[in-house]
Amino acid sequence: MNKPDSGPLSAEQARQQELLDRVLTSFQGTESPRLKQIMESLTRHLHSFVQDVRLTEQEWSAGIEFLTGVGHITDDRRQEFILLSDVLGVSMQMVTVNNVAVGDSTEATVVGPFFVENSPEIPLGGDMSFGAEGQPCWVEGIVRDTVGKPIPRARIELWEADDNGLYDVQYDDDRVAARAHLFSDEDGSYRFWGITPTPYPIPSDGPVGKMLEVVGRSPMRAPHLHFMVTAPGKRTLVTHIFVNDSDYLDKDSVFGVKESLIKDFVLQEPGTPTPDGRDLADAPWTRVKFDIVLAPAKETPATS
Amino acid sequence: MNKPDSGPLSAEQARQQELLDRVLTSFQGTESPRLKQIMESLTRHLHSFVQDVRLTEQEWSAGIEFLTGVGHITDDRRQEFILLSDVLGVSMQMVTVNNVAVGDSTEATVVGPFFVENSPEIPLGGDMSFGAEGQPCWVEGIVRDTVGKPIPRARIELWEADDNGLYDVQYDDDRVAARAHLFSDEDGSYRFWGITPTPYPIPSDGPVGKMLEVVGRSPMRAPHLHFMVTAPGKRTLVTHIFVNDSDYLDKDSVFGVKESLIKDFVLQEPGTPTPDGRDLADAPWTRVKFDIVLAPAKETPATS
Repeated sequence: MNKPDSGPLSAEQARQQELLDRVLTSFQGTESPRLKQIMESLTRHLHSFVQDVRLTEQEWSAGIEFLTGVGHITDDRRQEFILLSDVLGVSMQMVTVNNVAVGDSTEATVVGPFFVENSPEIPLGGDMSFGAEGQPCWVEGIVRDTVGKPIPRARIELWEADDNGLYDVQYDDDRVAARAHLFSDEDGSYRFWGITPTPYPIPSDGPVGKMLEVVGRSPMRAPHLHFMVTAPGKRTLVTHIFVNDSDYLDKDSVFGVKESLIKDFVLQEPGTPTPDGRDLADAPWTRVKFDIVLAPAKETPATS
Repeated sequence: MNKPDSGPLSAEQARQQELLDRVLTSFQGTESPRLKQIMESLTRHLHSFVQDVRLTEQEWSAGIEFLTGVGHITDDRRQEFILLSDVLGVSMQMVTVNNVAVGDSTEATVVGPFFVENSPEIPLGGDMSFGAEGQPCWVEGIVRDTVGKPIPRARIELWEADDNGLYDVQYDDDRVAARAHLFSDEDGSYRFWGITPTPYPIPSDGPVGKMLEVVGRSPMRAPHLHFMVTAPGKRTLVTHIFVNDSDYLDKDSVFGVKESLIKDFVLQEPGTPTPDGRDLADAPWTRVKFDIVLAPAKETPATS
């Protein structure tokens, strides 16, 4: 039911277009030009959607009911709207348009619903697991800019799920675990102990989980470790690293995987000496290298 | 950032398109072809919106927060998602695509958030106000089909706001007022007492009201009386009649007004004899005529 490229509108199309025009006109008085642009674009796309699929009243009602369910399950600890945005790839599209490549800058991916402000600080080489269950993993790398200059004192936020597939905030005991921040060294290098990421499902007992089921999709996320890296004059980087050869890399439920973010988590046999002399009592562990390149804060988009 | 009509995609556009393709592919396994179509179209339009306005993370977060607020204010008595759909004209667009004109069939408009099942039945000529404050209004007309044949025993649901601008369900005392149903007579005619509609604001103390304020729009609805008319073999008609020459006809907050639904509510001087001999104790009243034409249940759309 979109307008044909040529030819007059049918009477029905004219009625639909006249209605859309009336709605668009209603935003004329919006003080903020940016908000006006957003409301107009959103309105156009929502109306086009309704026209394209000829949405029935029953389907519209089901949509209202679905959104109501998403709203009702959302609280301080659970954000089902972010989950919805994530599984529709909307979050990732937003990340993509906002992180135009600058030189060899590290690619960004979704923030997800589990970032929390005020994580504990750990020293370089410290352990961000705070007792979270999982195989120890040594992570190291360097933070630099797009001309290769190391960035000292970059703030690196880290968070990940434990071996049960749960973030600390998903437990109801107020624990803080597998979550921390540290600062890169004077030479831009950083290193810490975390746990080797394992696959886990996004929360699937709510409306979004039900939706994935009905469309035949898995709620599983490819195993990953979250990073958020900030430094003065640099574009904030929100990203993950993913475990090479792990499951779900090709069907991550939130479309967060990028080839450049898949890293080798190299398995170390029991007894292999650790970089910092930590005694792992003959347990196996992994190590991974992740060099981080931050774009300048005000990039010029490569395309318009 | 939409694809240009010709020429190669830029690297950025290619990344955005590749992501969209991955999301669309994820719906391949949807069992219901209709649901698959809806999810694919919705995804395309949401991604286009994000690309078109280059939605920032801050704006995306504001959107998530807005929707969360809409969800949290919604309960058994208040449906802020319907309100949101209404003020964006999405509800009216849905009504438009589902109510293709068939002959001189009466035009449809939005159902709104205040319809309630199991309204009390009144006899022909009865009073649907049940004590709701307002100027008495005599409504009469005939229900017929598109070839002019009267429809006996059509079910006519009626609901409207009182003179305070509130529907019964907006009070917290469980009253049932200004809400009823009746059936057309054997000759298709119907008649009842209601109250003369007055303008009122949609609930504006929530996120949707705040949004209207920020975009410089009024929450007021043009005065109207709701009808829902059902009969075997006929398309259900959900509509309003609007009061001619009243305020807000040109800026109804939910875009429900259609020229054909604006009716003369003719003022009757105090003392004018009523059609059924009801004694109004020298109060003024109005009368209005509304003939209703129902389309066949399975219309063939006039356009494809």
